[in-house]
Amino acid sequence: MNDIAKPWANPAPTNPILEAIRFDANGLVAAIAQQHDTGEVLMMAWMNADSVTETLATGRVCYFSRSRGKLWRKGESSGQTQHLKDLRIDCDGDTLLLLVHQDGVACHTGRRNCFFRAARDGALIEIAAPEISPEKLYGHG
Amino acid sequence: MNDIAKPWANPAPTNPILEAIRFDANGLVAAIAQQHDTGEVLMMAWMNADSVTETLATGRVCYFSRSRGKLWRKGESSGQTQHLKDLRIDCDGDTLLLLVHQDGVACHTGRRNCFFRAARDGALIEIAAPEISPEKLYGHG
Repeated sequence: MNDIAKPWANPAPTNPILEAIRFDANGLVAAIAQQHDTGEVLMMAWMNADSVTETLATGRVCYFSRSRGKLWRKGESSGQTQHLKDLRIDCDGDTLLLLVHQDGVACHTGRRNCFFRAARDGALIEIAAPEISPEKLYGHG
Repeated sequence: MNDIAKPWANPAPTNPILEAIRFDANGLVAAIAQQHDTGEVLMMAWMNADSVTETLATGRVCYFSRSRGKLWRKGESSGQTQHLKDLRIDCDGDTLLLLVHQDGVACHTGRRNCFFRAARDGALIEIAAPEISPEKLYGHG
C-alpha cells in the first residue's frame, strides 16, 4: 500500500480564502460590514473560520460573538439579516470588508448603523436617531 | 493648605471622547478609514489614546503601529497623508470610523485601498491594480 490508497490520510482540501486570512491568536478576524450600494459603513464585528465558511456557503452573514463565545447569525434574534454581496480581504489579511445588503437596521440600538456618535468640539454628539426601538427588535417590549 | 491649593494633585481633565472609547487589553481600538466623499473604505488600523488625541488635535490621522510598537503618522514615510473630516464611535465604543480625505493611496502596495482581493468562486482575485509602485512610495527604488 502507498499513500495514494489512503485518501483519509490526506490533509483536508485547502480553501484559498481561509488560507489568505490571518486569524489572530483567538482565531478571529475583524470584519467591516458596508451597505453595498450606498457605501454606508454599518458595523464592525469579528469572524472565525467557521463563520467565514458559513457566510460564503449561505450568503447570509454569520459573525462570531466574542461576548457569547459562539457563532452569531446576524439577524437571528432581531430579523435584521445581512445578505452578502461581496467579501474582500485586505493587503495583510487581517481585516475583511463585507459588502452586504442590510435588512432594516444594523445596530442593536435600532439605528441604521453603529457609528451614530461623532466628535464635535471635544465632545460626542448623536447624529442619528433609532429607526426602531430595541424592544421591538428583540421582542422584550 | 487644602486640595484647592494643589492643582497638580487633581486628576487630569477628562476627555469625553477618550472616555467613550473602550480600548482593549493592549490599549488599542480598531479604526476604519473611509474616504469622506466617495464612501470608499480605505483601510483598517489601530489607535491608542495618544494617537486619538493627536489625530483630533492635528487633523492628520495618526495610528498606532502594532508591528513597530509606536505611533504611526499615516503618510510620514510615504507622503500619503490622511486628513480627518469626522471621527465617529460605534455603539459599544470599540470601533472608530474615521472619515478622511486620503492624499494619493492608502495601501502600502500602492493601491487606493487595502481591500483589493475579492472572493470569487472559492478563490481570491485581485480587483484593483497599484496606482504607484511601493518603491516610489517608500523611496527604495
